[in-house]
Amino acid sequence: MALMSGIVYIVGAGPGDPELLTVKAARLLSEADVILYDRLAPSGALSYAKKDARLVDVGKAPGGEGWTQDEINSEMARWAAAGMKVVRLKGGDPLVFGRGEEECAYLLARNIRCEIVPGVSSATGVPSCAGIPLASRWGSSTFAVVTGRTARGPPARALGEIARHVDTLVVMMPLSNLRSIADELAAAVGPGTPAALVRNGCAGSQSVIEAAISEMPSRAAGLSPPAILVVGAGAALRRRLARPARAP
Amino acid sequence: MALMSGIVYIVGAGPGDPELLTVKAARLLSEADVILYDRLAPSGALSYAKKDARLVDVGKAPGGEGWTQDEINSEMARWAAAGMKVVRLKGGDPLVFGRGEEECAYLLARNIRCEIVPGVSSATGVPSCAGIPLASRWGSSTFAVVTGRTARGPPARALGEIARHVDTLVVMMPLSNLRSIADELAAAVGPGTPAALVRNGCAGSQSVIEAAISEMPSRAAGLSPPAILVVGAGAALRRRLARPARAP
Repeated sequence: MALMSGIVYIVGAGPGDPELLTVKAARLLSEADVILYDRLAPSGALSYAKKDARLVDVGKAPGGEGWTQDEINSEMARWAAAGMKVVRLKGGDPLVFGRGEEECAYLLARNIRCEIVPGVSSATGVPSCAGIPLASRWGSSTFAVVTGRTARGPPARALGEIARHVDTLVVMMPLSNLRSIADELAAAVGPGTPAALVRNGCAGSQSVIEAAISEMPSRAAGLSPPAILVVGAGAALRRRLARPARAP
Repeated sequence: MALMSGIVYIVGAGPGDPELLTVKAARLLSEADVILYDRLAPSGALSYAKKDARLVDVGKAPGGEGWTQDEINSEMARWAAAGMKVVRLKGGDPLVFGRGEEECAYLLARNIRCEIVPGVSSATGVPSCAGIPLASRWGSSTFAVVTGRTARGPPARALGEIARHVDTLVVMMPLSNLRSIADELAAAVGPGTPAALVRNGCAGSQSVIEAAISEMPSRAAGLSPPAILVVGAGAALRRRLARPARAP
């Protein structure tokens, strides 16, 4: 007789508002025996969990100790192998800078079922929450998404070259390298290029700084993550959407 | 005394599975007095509507008659001005090729309240449903999103130039210009570059064709929309996620 076999759902929790979880994410959370989460999942998402679910915080506090990826992988596999329904909750979408593919591949290689459940990616959701059209007939038909930092430090690809070939550029996690990112973009597309920096996107505490890209580092000085930077046409279009209504 | 004032929510419904609506979208649909929808919203999304909601199909059937944008704008404004809670339901995310910004600006200019509610964009959600990592430590740290057609025909920007500067390119609505898109990309990044075409993404009928970009037009001949094309590193990485589990 086969062992009862568990499953791991790698679930995107969206950008910051628990109501921006998908209906499927909320359902899976309500059914899960075990939920692994970290600080990138919106606080409040765990309110969907059933009462007796086991909640495992695998996150790193900034500067603090967190679980290694190996430890997270083992923990998921352990509970699933015991027949449990496991949800691994991630901010945004699991396959957009989320490492969901790494975790799922680990499980599949051990004959453990795994399913990816898309979420609202922060790359598109945070601009939308801030009223920034990434792709619009108003004047942005192409956009690119890059990360402002990698595991080894600053980004590898030439951001300036990318920015010159698309209408709008989205930089995830821009704060730790903001000066060098802004310098490179200013040199590539002009210091006056419109930019918008969205902090705590889609959360009640969301704030937006609009400035020319060359001025963004001083305008954003002292801010802490999470934040997303939008540069180019889309950032400029925000004004058209946000302008005050005319007097009747 | 002020008139009772309505509101229009421009709501993203995600890429094709009604369970990929956000919790907020489902709630707003359940509260709405009037819902305007078209064929880009997932069939099944209307199941969240309350019983006596007024459902207005403003969509164009392919080749058939549909409402003009002006007519849609007027209809939203009319119901909101009458004090109704209106949901304008859109496929994907309202500000990613969704024209949500145009509709919201129209309303704001007439002193009608409008709120954008992000959804799972098809640009990121469809690849995730198909197991395609757009951004991954496995080898794709940058991606770009373009559309395969515009209101005036083929895309304006040079797709090949964009493709050469990012790891992975996502082409929305690629089918009507697939031959010219594939030719341009093959010339820019090489005819053997891996590509994946996802049709009916995130729906039960989802199918995926994996082929070199130069072979995609013949492989995808005769297919009808909706589809999304992914070209480059992300498309190749799908194999690592989808590979069969090893024997125990």
